[in-house]
Amino acid sequence: MTLTVIEHVLERLKAIGIADVFGVPGDYAFPVNDAVCNDKAMRWIGCTNELNAAYAADGYARVKGMAALSTTYGVGELSAINGVAGAYAEHLPIFHLVGTPSLSVQKSRAAMHHTLGTGDFDLFRRMSEPVVCAHAVMTPQNVAFETERLIHAALFHRRPVYMAFPADCANQPVQGRAEPIAMPTSDANTLDEATNAIASALDQAGSACVLPGILIARCGLRDAMQAMIDRSGLPFATMFMDKSALDERQAAYVGMYDGAIMTEEVRDFVEGCDQVLAIGTLASDFNTGAFTARLDPGRTIGIGHHHVRVGGKTFANVELGDVLVALAGKLAKRRWKTIPAAPTGERPGGGSDPITAEALYPRWESFLKPGDTLVAETGTASMGLGFAHLPAGATFHNQTLWGSIGWATPAAVGAAAAAPGRRTILVTGEGSHQLTAQEIGQFGRLGLKPIIFVLNNNGYLIERLLCKDPAIAYNDLAPWRYTELPHALGCDGWFTARVTTCAELDAALAEAENASGGVYIEVVTDTYAASKLAIKLHDSIESLYAA
Amino acid sequence: MTLTVIEHVLERLKAIGIADVFGVPGDYAFPVNDAVCNDKAMRWIGCTNELNAAYAADGYARVKGMAALSTTYGVGELSAINGVAGAYAEHLPIFHLVGTPSLSVQKSRAAMHHTLGTGDFDLFRRMSEPVVCAHAVMTPQNVAFETERLIHAALFHRRPVYMAFPADCANQPVQGRAEPIAMPTSDANTLDEATNAIASALDQAGSACVLPGILIARCGLRDAMQAMIDRSGLPFATMFMDKSALDERQAAYVGMYDGAIMTEEVRDFVEGCDQVLAIGTLASDFNTGAFTARLDPGRTIGIGHHHVRVGGKTFANVELGDVLVALAGKLAKRRWKTIPAAPTGERPGGGSDPITAEALYPRWESFLKPGDTLVAETGTASMGLGFAHLPAGATFHNQTLWGSIGWATPAAVGAAAAAPGRRTILVTGEGSHQLTAQEIGQFGRLGLKPIIFVLNNNGYLIERLLCKDPAIAYNDLAPWRYTELPHALGCDGWFTARVTTCAELDAALAEAENASGGVYIEVVTDTYAASKLAIKLHDSIESLYAA
Repeated sequence: MTLTVIEHVLERLKAIGIADVFGVPGDYAFPVNDAVCNDKAMRWIGCTNELNAAYAADGYARVKGMAALSTTYGVGELSAINGVAGAYAEHLPIFHLVGTPSLSVQKSRAAMHHTLGTGDFDLFRRMSEPVVCAHAVMTPQNVAFETERLIHAALFHRRPVYMAFPADCANQPVQGRAEPIAMPTSDANTLDEATNAIASALDQAGSACVLPGILIARCGLRDAMQAMIDRSGLPFATMFMDKSALDERQAAYVGMYDGAIMTEEVRDFVEGCDQVLAIGTLASDFNTGAFTARLDPGRTIGIGHHHVRVGGKTFANVELGDVLVALAGKLAKRRWKTIPAAPTGERPGGGSDPITAEALYPRWESFLKPGDTLVAETGTASMGLGFAHLPAGATFHNQTLWGSIGWATPAAVGAAAAAPGRRTILVTGEGSHQLTAQEIGQFGRLGLKPIIFVLNNNGYLIERLLCKDPAIAYNDLAPWRYTELPHALGCDGWFTARVTTCAELDAALAEAENASGGVYIEVVTDTYAASKLAIKLHDSIESLYAA
Repeated sequence: MTLTVIEHVLERLKAIGIADVFGVPGDYAFPVNDAVCNDKAMRWIGCTNELNAAYAADGYARVKGMAALSTTYGVGELSAINGVAGAYAEHLPIFHLVGTPSLSVQKSRAAMHHTLGTGDFDLFRRMSEPVVCAHAVMTPQNVAFETERLIHAALFHRRPVYMAFPADCANQPVQGRAEPIAMPTSDANTLDEATNAIASALDQAGSACVLPGILIARCGLRDAMQAMIDRSGLPFATMFMDKSALDERQAAYVGMYDGAIMTEEVRDFVEGCDQVLAIGTLASDFNTGAFTARLDPGRTIGIGHHHVRVGGKTFANVELGDVLVALAGKLAKRRWKTIPAAPTGERPGGGSDPITAEALYPRWESFLKPGDTLVAETGTASMGLGFAHLPAGATFHNQTLWGSIGWATPAAVGAAAAAPGRRTILVTGEGSHQLTAQEIGQFGRLGLKPIIFVLNNNGYLIERLLCKDPAIAYNDLAPWRYTELPHALGCDGWFTARVTTCAELDAALAEAENASGGVYIEVVTDTYAASKLAIKLHDSIESLYAA
């Protein structure tokens, strides 16, 4: 039987591993919504709003490698656009399926709902162009090959793509056919040259280390990367955005590298190496300790998704996965100079002591278990958690480059939906939580049991630390009663607690560990109880904003 | 003392009547945020997220004529962009103040947070271009004249404008000066010609009526429009988007005109007139009863914001306000043929009867009082309320063209903040409410006391009526406990109730009338208890989607 346009696209998405579609339905998108719901092998995950749906898709893609998002024309797609932009910045392939008015209506230029009333129907697609790596209006005539082109683009760039489905096209039978476009392979000679150049640079180096970057996780290359580390004996440090690219519980792990503003011994070690292999990293502000990192370009080997740069020369047409495999086979195992990663911190405080940053972050760290999925919101909380020593197999997720507050709550929904068998732990500041808190209800609806910590420090703390007058009114928030939210949003059987002392926190953590349902703990601290990195950023305002 | 760039803009906004700025702060926007908070004559209204802030600004502009919105670069402005697009579609001048990285950082192309990491800093401004009528990057050198240009554009088009404030420009002293640009005046001869042509067409008409449109309210011309009605004796009907453009409690009011799908007697009257004066209206799908309106272009006089079309001829350079004044002076008073507006409906049901649509909408209608501000969300609820006969001075607000669900809750916050002395009544479906419900906390924070009705019909009812399979899963929602929300979101002393029978509804309405705090009533109906227009739309799917 010939598939329809939308059925064909869904078949192809399933074939590459997407089983869920996050979204909000809408009349122009009914053909898309219908097709998802009528497909027994797909799940429609209806979110409370489109931005939350985009964030949830983002969280899902962090776990599964890719995701799908469905919104309606105009109102829906524009509401989601910030979440799609975040996926672009953070290298997450999201297939954004947008239902649009029919081509015949578009031709009529009628003043339809969800338009500006000006007769221009193509402008929302154009608005999305800068935040996707490819886009197309899917018709019966082009759907076969456009689907392949968009899948290829999404996976080649690890960025979102935009697919519009006019209402009079989506249910039409597909015309023609197209083969999947093969993912690129490395040019064999160039690969040899490039990896030989790297091996030779390392041979001549007295010391070296690896910075395994975010693209390792994004491209599903953790195993290949680990094999290269194991075979070569190279030590590695991690930058903020890249945290948990590799397991932190191994001898090769040196610690978090954040330029001059944190863990001086790691900075000294990394910047003192004769060669640093930066593999799929990005020298962004928060990856470089507010631009205080000093990596000598002459001693830095850059391995990107589709290129290598070594010894002042760039090799194109080499693929990251192939480079890792080749290096694993080529690098001689050496006992490289290294330093031990910092041990897990003490847990000061107890009883009726207030919950200081010094008391809080080590407690969170020791609460973590192997295999946990930790979603940490932008702000002081993630800045503290970023320096926790993660248990084996635990992954850390943070929107380090895009940094859109509110992201974490729905992203945790997506991550939990993608891996319901793992513990999903969400840590968010209360200010960020307010943007998207209604998605909490989604956990209950999907039967997921997250562990949620809402850090209530009476406002936007990171802003208090970065602006001129910390007490200025715009950093204040409406005084919510956070622990009432799960019940109000339909989550039954959850453990909730509001803790203001170390003893209360310890008791709540113990309860959380054994809870049979979801967990929601409001952790109340002083207004200025900031993690160390957040304080350091306050001291680094000049370098942060004067790139 | 020389003002800074941002101070200058705020002075000019205050001068044209804007005293409040809705927004979410952010580090790149600190100079904007600081300036607003440090200005004793301005109020910063911090919203839970940027889309909500844009909607709140929209609601404020509906009451005050214009509004200001402040967001940060990238993440903030893109989150708000759907709300700004709505303001464009619905003709609301919103000044969108966006704080951006400094020009020197932009020049460096550094991988800053809130960027895509590609070094392109200008692309978010470009993304906003299609949904604003003018835009500028404000610098010390251009701020004097750009401010005047943008104010003029916003008021001339009654659309939003975009103003970017680079962090290294916002606090610099203004250079140069510029005079406000005068609003256009009509060309005297053309005005005379155009209004004579209208007067002559009416002289020859045996019957005529007016359709006063949304632009009457947007341009602050209700008094001029009313004077023209009073002087001429012309009857008027109202289309959906235009509801409450003029007071409905007057003899000249004929009723709601919605093409062939509602109130047949109004349709017969309007379409039977020899001349229909469409004044600032738009022939959109929901304004024309799904394109069933049949207004003969040869018998329709169109009066736009800056032009008149009569007898097949277009007169440019004539201003709506001037046209109304000229017509009021020129038209002879006649006893025009008319029909009486439909009387207020009965209120069937009582006791333990379920709350049917027939029971519900007349009760809401009779609950309304003179001067109320009624904010009605897109969906079945507004479709019912649109046919309520409003008390004197009551205004009806609905996003009829843009139709972005979720708009109403924050828009009600903005409307209430703009007119705290009036009763603000929000009516929303529960599906729409879920998108933006956290803004409820803002009422409590601002000390506002709205009356909120959440119509809980177990899902997206308007979608059930328009899609193929009404019971399909995407129309279902997470089962929230709505009445717990105000307390959870920090609103104290509110009256809340969940009503499932007519008696409970009647009791809750009586309580609401005398409540000393805010009111939040969840009205539970059957899944398919739809207002008449919603059912009619279900019957009109073909004409609705095949313009």
